Order: sequence, then C-alpha cells, then structure tokens
Amino acid sequence: MRIQRVVALSGGVGGAKLVDGLAQVLPPGALTTIVNTGDDFVHWGLFICPDLDTILYTLAGLAHPDQGWGLAGETFGALAMVERLGGPAWFRLGDRDLGTHLVRTQRLAAGLSLTAITDELRRAYEISTSILPMCDVARPTMLDTRDGTLDFQEWLVRRRGAPQVTRVWWPGPVPPAAPGVIAAIDNADVVVIGPSNPYVSIDPILACDGVRAAIAKKPVIAVSPIVGGAAVKGPLGAMIPTLARREPSAAAIADHYGSLLRGLVIERGDAPPDGLPTLPAPTVMKTRDDRARLAAEVLAFAEVLA
Amino acid sequence: MRIQRVVALSGGVGGAKLVDGLAQVLPPGALTTIVNTGDDFVHWGLFICPDLDTILYTLAGLAHPDQGWGLAGETFGALAMVERLGGPAWFRLGDRDLGTHLVRTQRLAAGLSLTAITDELRRAYEISTSILPMCDVARPTMLDTRDGTLDFQEWLVRRRGAPQVTRVWWPGPVPPAAPGVIAAIDNADVVVIGPSNPYVSIDPILACDGVRAAIAKKPVIAVSPIVGGAAVKGPLGAMIPTLARREPSAAAIADHYGSLLRGLVIERGDAPPDGLPTLPAPTVMKTRDDRARLAAEVLAFAEVLA
Repeated sequence: MRIQRVVALSGGVGGAKLVDGLAQVLPPGALTTIVNTGDDFVHWGLFICPDLDTILYTLAGLAHPDQGWGLAGETFGALAMVERLGGPAWFRLGDRDLGTHLVRTQRLAAGLSLTAITDELRRAYEISTSILPMCDVARPTMLDTRDGTLDFQEWLVRRRGAPQVTRVWWPGPVPPAAPGVIAAIDNADVVVIGPSNPYVSIDPILACDGVRAAIAKKPVIAVSPIVGGAAVKGPLGAMIPTLARREPSAAAIADHYGSLLRGLVIERGDAPPDGLPTLPAPTVMKTRDDRARLAAEVLAFAEVLA
Repeated sequence: MRIQRVVALSGGVGGAKLVDGLAQVLPPGALTTIVNTGDDFVHWGLFICPDLDTILYTLAGLAHPDQGWGLAGETFGALAMVERLGGPAWFRLGDRDLGTHLVRTQRLAAGLSLTAITDELRRAYEISTSILPMCDVARPTMLDTRDGTLDFQEWLVRRRGAPQVTRVWWPGPVPPAAPGVIAAIDNADVVVIGPSNPYVSIDPILACDGVRAAIAKKPVIAVSPIVGGAAVKGPLGAMIPTLARREPSAAAIADHYGSLLRGLVIERGDAPPDGLPTLPAPTVMKTRDDRARLAAEVLAFAEVLA
C-alpha cells in the first residue's frame, strides 16, 4: 500500500533522529509523533519535559549535534550561579533551554494543557510535524533498583544510570492518552517505533489508556536500538540482562514488543530474530542524511509489509 | 562621637555604590543595609528583588560596571529563547541573574522568609555587610501616572519611566518591618540615606511600621541624588516637578526628608538648602575608590554632627 499517514513513537535522541528523518521524507502533514512524558519532572521549580524538548530541538535544528541532550551553542550561566548559591546542579540545564522551561511552566500555571503548550512551542519553532505528548497528566516512570526506588532523572542523570534496574513501573491509575493520540493512531497507515529504549521510552506510551489497543490494529515497524549486542546509547544494554534475563540483541527487542510488531529494522550483520520480517539497514544515524535514508528504508519496508 | 555602627538605607545603584563605599571603610560587622523591596515583582514565574540583587551583586563585585543593572559579563540565552517563544521580553533577565531568581523563588516556595533567603545569598556571595529587606511581605510600590496606575517595573522598565507620576502609594496595610530592621536602627550610631530616589527607593522603607520613628531618634545623614539640578540617574529629575511642584535641587531633597535629616551631603557647587548642615563633596561615584572616598566623607561629617 501507499503510505500517507505515519505515527512515530519517540523517546530520547535515537527516536528523535528517526522522527527528523521521517519529517524529511514525508510530505507536510503526514507525520505525527507521540512522545514519552514519563521522564518529565520538576526541577528548580520548572516543569521539564526532556523527551518533548529533544523532539522540538531536533526538528527545529537546534539540538546539540553530538552530546545527546540540550542545544547547540548553549551557555550555562544560570547553572553556574545556582551552583554558586548552593542549589542543585546535577541536572545540567542550559540557559536557552531554561527559556523553554520557563515559558512552558508559565503556560501550565496559566491553565493550558501540555498538549496545547507543546503545539504552541511547535509553531514557535516552525515545525510542521505534529507533536503530541502521550498524556496530559503526570505519569512519572519509576525504577526499582538495587539502591531502592528512584524516579527517572534521579536514576539516569543524577546516578548516571548506574543502579541496576529490577523493575520499571508507573504509580497511580492508567492515564488517558492525550487528546488526538488515539485519533492519530487510528488515522495512521503505519506506526513506527524509533530506536528508543523500550522500557523507559516506548512502554510509557503503550501503557496509556487505549494506546496499545489502537496500535495493535495497525502495521507496526520498529527500529532496533541494539547494534552489535550493545545499545547505541544510554543504559538499555545494562537493562535487558536484568529485566529480560538475556543478552541485548534484536531478538530481545522483537520479543519485548511481541505480537505488536509486523517488522523489525535491524543493524546490518546483526542476527535477525526468528519468525519476524526483518530489514537489515544502517541504523546508526550520524548525519541528517543518515536519518532521511533510514526513514526512507523504514517506510519502504512498511509499504511492503502493510 | 566615634561611629561604630552604621545603618544605610538603600534602593538602586547609587545607594548600592555608597553601601559598597561604607563597607570598604568600616570594620567588618559595623554596617547593616536596609533595602527597598517595593520594586519586587514576579516575572516568568520567578520572584525578583531588583534592589536586593543590586546590593548583593555590587557588594560581591559582580555588578555590571556601567549599565546600572545586572551582572558583568552576563549572557542572555534564556531571554532570547523566551522571546522566540512569544514570552515577555521587556524585562531583560540575564542568565546568571536568573540563577539568583531561581534559587530565591525555590527557597521562598520552601517556606523561607525573604530575610532568611537574603542572608543565605549574602553568605554564598561572601559578603560581610548585613543585608536586610525592609519587610518580609509583599509591599509593591504603585504609581498613579497620566497613563493610569502602574506597578513599579511596568512603569520604570516596560514604559521606560515615561508616564508622568502624579502619586506614589502602597496598597494594603502598613507592613511590619522585617526582623532585625528596628533593632539594627536602634543599635546604630548613625543612619545614612544613600543618593537614591526618595519617592520610590527610600520612602517605601520609611513607610514600614516603626521604621520612621526609629530613624527619627538617630542622627541621619543623606547624600543628595541631585547634581547640578538633575538626577544622577533614573527618573527622579522628572518626578520632583510633578510630585513636589519645584525644580530638582538639594533643597528639594532636604525638604522631602524634612526633620528626619541632621545633615545633607551635596555635590560641590550645588546650592545648599537653608537651615541644614551641608557638606559639599564629589557625590558621583565612578570608581570603587570614589565610593570609599565619599563614604569616608559621609562618616566624618556624621561624626561631627552626631
């Protein structure tokens, strides 16, 4: 089939890069990304949405090219002062990044929803891709670790992802998906899951009310975040052995998503999982062109499978 | 008499410079400054105390040398981003300055008083002078103008002080002075009023409960903010004609403070007011040495008068 509308689920940097690739190759209006908000937290009194910001900055062409977080050409004057005054400095908030958090926090305080604010920011950054938070309510990802239960940023940033994770969970009732999320999935020809951490980037989205069921009705293609038996970035490589009791591999990713997947894009040379259509491709995106190339391969693969 | 303990009332830049001069020439522990908080306001969700920050930055040696506000070597990344996102950008908050506001706002939210937070900041900046806000409650200076009633920052910064002021006032009940304010005045050998705007920098302090009465028991020396018939800085020169119906002069300042004053330091060459001991001196402080020199003259004059 000819793919006209795509939904991409996204968490951190890998997912954002693939979304940027899809935005490059799809016509305007064709792409919606649904973004993890399980990492959101309040710091310095500001409401911070790391994965939404990664998508915004990446699609606006403002993201730092190598660092994996924050903005290119960023300064850290506020952080230096907060540190001098004895405030918490373990989360490295840049000055321009602070501008985003200040505006978002103010708009939330004025009563706007996270969905509405995200769309305001999207328009201010002149991004044509629709960006939807997975939900409009707090839904913090919690991690049971050998050092006790930690919230996401405490674990990943403050403790550098070191405490071994034994369980990932979310407190409170299952939240409704944000307005537009289920409709976007229902209208999509294909759902793409980026090369993100399944446990802490994608599962929070799938766990919002109705999302997994809506996605299950669609052709779903994932890009494996595992390359040569290791995670491209971040703590995933250390999480799979404890959480899935196996070595990191494309097969571990395939099994994690299970019957949801119609196909998996894996790194060339990696062993394909049994019983699932697989496309070997260069999955590590170093340049913007790499993103577009991988996105085009993902879409071509989806057209065959859908 | 030998002066051992000094209280200085301070508002903006001129007052802060004289406090820095007094801090240079007095022994550690001898000086307390009581600072106007009528300019305080909430912006970008942050609690901002311009006059307290001017004192903190000036005494810490961090203030911008010429500009009259903010920090030397400041960056404006957050402001640029807020502006890009359509937020209010008329108040030019620098990045390092933001660090101070973020920490103060967080500490206020944690339940600390402005007095306690100011002392934390003072210690973090390694300042030995005691710094007391005039009061711990909101006490916004309001200005009736030809364009309607405006709050202080709206008038001074957003409207550049242009709307002609017909009345300065404070809503709500008279607030108690902050803890330590009355005791500091009672313990002082002399009270120095800096070359500040009497209407919007000093009157707010005098209007806190008990302050004027406590000061009235002490020898009070003011430094005139008028030089050659004009204000050294800011909108004072335009305020005196409408509020006092006379031209700006040392005599206008003397009459404004009235019986409170025991002496007035005026610029050399300016006409002295009738019936008040006057010391002509160089009152414009361009260098740090100028501040110390003027402070020493003020103290010598006070020793004679006290």
